[in-house]
Amino acid sequence: MINVGIVGATGYTGVELLRLLVTHPEVTLKIITSRAEAGMPVSDMFPNLRGFVDLCFSEPDVDQLASCDVVFFATPHCVAMAMVPELIKRGTRVIDLSADFRLKDAKQWEQWYNMPHSCPELLDLAVYGLPEINREQIKSAQLIAVAGCYPTATQLGFLPLLENDVIDPLHLIADAKSGVSGAGRTAAVASLLSESSENMKAYGVAGHRHLPEIEQGLSGAYGKAVNLTFVPHLTPMIRGIHATLYGRLTKDCDLQALYQQRYADEPFVDVMPIGSHPETRSVRGSNTCRIAIHQPQNSDTVVVLSVIDNLVKGASGQAVQNMNIMFGFDETLAINTIAALP
Amino acid sequence: MINVGIVGATGYTGVELLRLLVTHPEVTLKIITSRAEAGMPVSDMFPNLRGFVDLCFSEPDVDQLASCDVVFFATPHCVAMAMVPELIKRGTRVIDLSADFRLKDAKQWEQWYNMPHSCPELLDLAVYGLPEINREQIKSAQLIAVAGCYPTATQLGFLPLLENDVIDPLHLIADAKSGVSGAGRTAAVASLLSESSENMKAYGVAGHRHLPEIEQGLSGAYGKAVNLTFVPHLTPMIRGIHATLYGRLTKDCDLQALYQQRYADEPFVDVMPIGSHPETRSVRGSNTCRIAIHQPQNSDTVVVLSVIDNLVKGASGQAVQNMNIMFGFDETLAINTIAALP
Amino acid sequence: MINVGIVGATGYTGVELLRLLVTHPEVTLKIITSRAEAGMPVSDMFPNLRGFVDLCFSEPDVDQLASCDVVFFATPHCVAMAMVPELIKRGTRVIDLSADFRLKDAKQWEQWYNMPHSCPELLDLAVYGLPEINREQIKSAQLIAVAGCYPTATQLGFLPLLENDVIDPLHLIADAKSGVSGAGRTAAVASLLSESSENMKAYGVAGHRHLPEIEQGLSGAYGKAVNLTFVPHLTPMIRGIHATLYGRLTKDCDLQALYQQRYADEPFVDVMPIGSHPETRSVRGSNTCRIAIHQPQNSDTVVVLSVIDNLVKGASGQAVQNMNIMFGFDETLAINTIAALP
Amino acid sequence: MINVGIVGATGYTGVELLRLLVTHPEVTLKIITSRAEAGMPVSDMFPNLRGFVDLCFSEPDVDQLASCDVVFFATPHCVAMAMVPELIKRGTRVIDLSADFRLKDAKQWEQWYNMPHSCPELLDLAVYGLPEINREQIKSAQLIAVAGCYPTATQLGFLPLLENDVIDPLHLIADAKSGVSGAGRTAAVASLLSESSENMKAYGVAGHRHLPEIEQGLSGAYGKAVNLTFVPHLTPMIRGIHATLYGRLTKDCDLQALYQQRYADEPFVDVMPIGSHPETRSVRGSNTCRIAIHQPQNSDTVVVLSVIDNLVKGASGQAVQNMNIMFGFDETLAINTIAALP
Repeated sequence: MINVGIVGATGYTGVELLRLLVTHPEVTLKIITSRAEAGMPVSDMFPNLRGFVDLCFSEPDVDQLASCDVVFFATPHCVAMAMVPELIKRGTRVIDLSADFRLKDAKQWEQWYNMPHSCPELLDLAVYGLPEINREQIKSAQLIAVAGCYPTATQLGFLPLLENDVIDPLHLIADAKSGVSGAGRTAAVASLLSESSENMKAYGVAGHRHLPEIEQGLSGAYGKAVNLTFVPHLTPMIRGIHATLYGRLTKDCDLQALYQQRYADEPFVDVMPIGSHPETRSVRGSNTCRIAIHQPQNSDTVVVLSVIDNLVKGASGQAVQNMNIMFGFDETLAINTIAALP
Repeated sequence: MINVGIVGATGYTGVELLRLLVTHPEVTLKIITSRAEAGMPVSDMFPNLRGFVDLCFSEPDVDQLASCDVVFFATPHCVAMAMVPELIKRGTRVIDLSADFRLKDAKQWEQWYNMPHSCPELLDLAVYGLPEINREQIKSAQLIAVAGCYPTATQLGFLPLLENDVIDPLHLIADAKSGVSGAGRTAAVASLLSESSENMKAYGVAGHRHLPEIEQGLSGAYGKAVNLTFVPHLTPMIRGIHATLYGRLTKDCDLQALYQQRYADEPFVDVMPIGSHPETRSVRGSNTCRIAIHQPQNSDTVVVLSVIDNLVKGASGQAVQNMNIMFGFDETLAINTIAALP
Repeated sequence: MINVGIVGATGYTGVELLRLLVTHPEVTLKIITSRAEAGMPVSDMFPNLRGFVDLCFSEPDVDQLASCDVVFFATPHCVAMAMVPELIKRGTRVIDLSADFRLKDAKQWEQWYNMPHSCPELLDLAVYGLPEINREQIKSAQLIAVAGCYPTATQLGFLPLLENDVIDPLHLIADAKSGVSGAGRTAAVASLLSESSENMKAYGVAGHRHLPEIEQGLSGAYGKAVNLTFVPHLTPMIRGIHATLYGRLTKDCDLQALYQQRYADEPFVDVMPIGSHPETRSVRGSNTCRIAIHQPQNSDTVVVLSVIDNLVKGASGQAVQNMNIMFGFDETLAINTIAALP
Repeated sequence: MINVGIVGATGYTGVELLRLLVTHPEVTLKIITSRAEAGMPVSDMFPNLRGFVDLCFSEPDVDQLASCDVVFFATPHCVAMAMVPELIKRGTRVIDLSADFRLKDAKQWEQWYNMPHSCPELLDLAVYGLPEINREQIKSAQLIAVAGCYPTATQLGFLPLLENDVIDPLHLIADAKSGVSGAGRTAAVASLLSESSENMKAYGVAGHRHLPEIEQGLSGAYGKAVNLTFVPHLTPMIRGIHATLYGRLTKDCDLQALYQQRYADEPFVDVMPIGSHPETRSVRGSNTCRIAIHQPQNSDTVVVLSVIDNLVKGASGQAVQNMNIMFGFDETLAINTIAALP
């Protein structure tokens, strides 16, 4: 059994983390912090947890948090980087769901997030928490930067093509559709049901913060720089990301075999049969990334369809997967759940 | 470990039953039948089950089914009553999610379902599968008629008032709102997203088949005839029932205490604090019925808010709860799941 | 042609008012105010108006507004009452979509809105803008308090029963379901798609501000005090109110005939044939209130189903209907639109 | 005034056509046919039309239809081609919303629709009903093949780039998202709210029938063959198409100016300012195609965002636009409506 603390559990990744950790047989939830809601029973805010979580939100306290075996940060960016250095110093392991430690280049981070990074010296220490790439480093990591939602769906979809050097790396296209929960539990007009229901729109076409994260990951896999056009869309649903990926093939090869081999041993990547169309609802609430590969009209354009639940494999499920690897638990413990259909 | 068969698992209660039973530590799934889809892998129809269910749909075969410890019927009405007599004769236990054995009066059944009942002699044998009323009989039952969705939400909401004789039993009102999955996985124009999304309507006001079922249950609890006005509504969501119940109080009493006492030991009924408004999403995918009691403006009208997931506590979860009771398992086994929020 | 000003057009009733007035052949839009957005082209905020509205939002200015023939207030409560006295003094006619002048009793207003009313002397002057009751007074009114959304659907549904004294006036029940746009274009967590989609809940059961408004209207029609239990629900859709009304019949009568006679000459009330179930989508974007009457199981409980679009007949369409009556235009001008199905 | 007949008005393009034609000042609706519903008042099936349409559905009768000035076909494919030859022979003008006359090459048609074409000799006579390309030919056309929904959004988005020869014509990509109404008012499991709500998926990636239609149109504009990868997606909403188009730039040019010039005189194409993201809801119920152009990160990949209402500019509105042009009416008559927001 390990003791676990969560900083900032009033958002959607927070409550999803609670849902998963509550059923984890090796975890004792010790601390759930929220500056704004300190004192309130967690289950008052999230009635789905009535009878499952007895804790109240508390003020974040470094001493208490440092006494945990691992601390999750389910916070907006810039919160983790203020507290993580002290926890790292005291030897506490940290799993950060925010973007604070995802980019290796502090300059790039500062450019995309419009503020100085307060602990750039930790960027090298941080392991990018995408187990399908970094499983070995995750085992011994002290600080995990959990991969983002779009980046998870996009990287898992492109990896086999780039690792095997069969597409033009400079003209990658990711047309990604996300449910509204990706915008978080923040009161914002654009996320109102009245604004985002019965509606479809692209956003951030000029530049989205997940672009450098994806390019960094794909460049790492390819060995050289890659270039991506990334167009995210807001879709009228709560959960789910559907990434439709396009690449120009530079070699003939058995694409289906490529993917099946690459992911043969991955517990949370499901390569579907030829001709399939994965649905986001088939992974809703589950930690699976489901992928299908197409080469329409036998042209030289490959189309990869990659779906995840943005709050599970795209955030909290992946965070628990990282934790399982870090502590030597069965990697699927507490996250091997089945999507509820319909 | 018990061997389980499911007849007719191509509908929504079927796939939900599979989701729950797959994780049940005491259950081995042996047979999943579908005349129409015999031979098709179950996970081809329901991709959320890929990696969890290896069986194919098979033709229903009484000999095979009879070899199971228990057989679930997740079928439209009139299917179970054709096969159940033979299974009962052979000693197999049966849990029927359809309406075939819910009414005790064959004449009434025939009037509401417009056809003769083929085995009225089994109606007395059947135990109405609402554990909060019939837990003792369920333990030894051979045939369970699982309570319907509207009837579960409505009865659990009215029970404490009627059992304690504090409302006028002849003027009960149930204004119930259901998600579209209640209409099943049948191709019907009225259930299309284009017809039922961005829309609210009542239906079946002149008479709905759940009305006699509810009145039978409430009359049983009250000891005398009751009279209910039941107005179901189609709500633009997939899952969930919100029953808003109205009664005229005939006595002063502490309503909140009444409910808390009645349900103190019930694992799946959650009486919320005074002033609460339960949300259907707080029970989505879970087996809980969440209830709040109001007496607005201190008038003599009591308002009870009762929410369930129509496919879980209103169908498949309740079916598993019945099974757990029948076989002496922990009553919450495999159904003690938390709703995913949001 | 009349000159029209709108105060506070950045909300949902505002943009809906613009959509209707733009096509009105007798209206020239002169002023559209918004303190927060002064200077911004209206069509930048509402791209559906690109090519139809060239005006920019401007600071509210009493002199300019007073030069209009009529000024609409599409503002939260407490805004209109600060500006209306001056406009009234100068002879400008005012149509207020907010709640500031709906209640005749200032004490009651202050109790429900938790603040002093700044011009109680105008409450008598104000005509309650529900044309089906007050058409004659509206013609010459200088100040209109447009009826609220729930109150419109509820009053139109109960009126024939109370005017003909055929139900118990002390035990009325209104179970009302509203789309989320009823909560306005305010950034609020509860109105997020991620919170309100795939969810159904009651709210404000202990007391909603529309309760005294409805009771005032129904008491007026009945001639004596009435008593209402009013339970509003938040429904996962953008537009639409479905009011399900319950009353205890005290006399035998031909209910269908009662309604058809009452509304025979009303251009915006459609009494459906016996056995009908009106759908909110059948009035989406239109100014119609569609009603059906049921007496299930021939009991003494009458059930009335009444649907409107909360932003049209429940707000902006009704406001234009009032304006048409005030200025002697055809009552249906610019609001005789057909709902788009699906 | 012209007399108008509609064949097959029980589907979504049919009811939308009725909504628009009912308000058309130059149109008298004479005949609305439906073999299946002959005798039923149209407004019984579509209650939004109560009070606006008094006709009943009738059996299709060529003599009656031939007496109209123009006949619309709002039918599935293969219905129009059985009746159109006779109407053409008698001199009646025909506007076909189906796919029967869209492709110029009968062989290609037969390959994609899996059946022989019964009147290939009419393919040359038919004018492709996309006014932004064929306005002149439409004026005198006797037979119009109204452009499809995806083809309208995609062609209007790509036209300026191809006409000006600034992109690689052999690697066009159209990632298109459609609301569920695109699948029609047919009872199909995949279109149920329970299946398609809270879900996103691609479909028909291997080949969709709109692909040859788009390629034919774009090849015509370009002057040589083009090659398109077309990936349609089912989006959880009723109406709207969002086409996200990708092309590889081969020349430097002022893209924004290109589009503004191309569509300067088009009443139904709205080129938005630089940096915009058009929303499908901004054209819901309206005949506008709204477009924005992006060149993210200054790469050589151009991204065009193009939105329409699939039932209006993508079907019935465009059909009326064609009719207006054919009969010399103001092109915007009866279709110059504003989207209702929210």
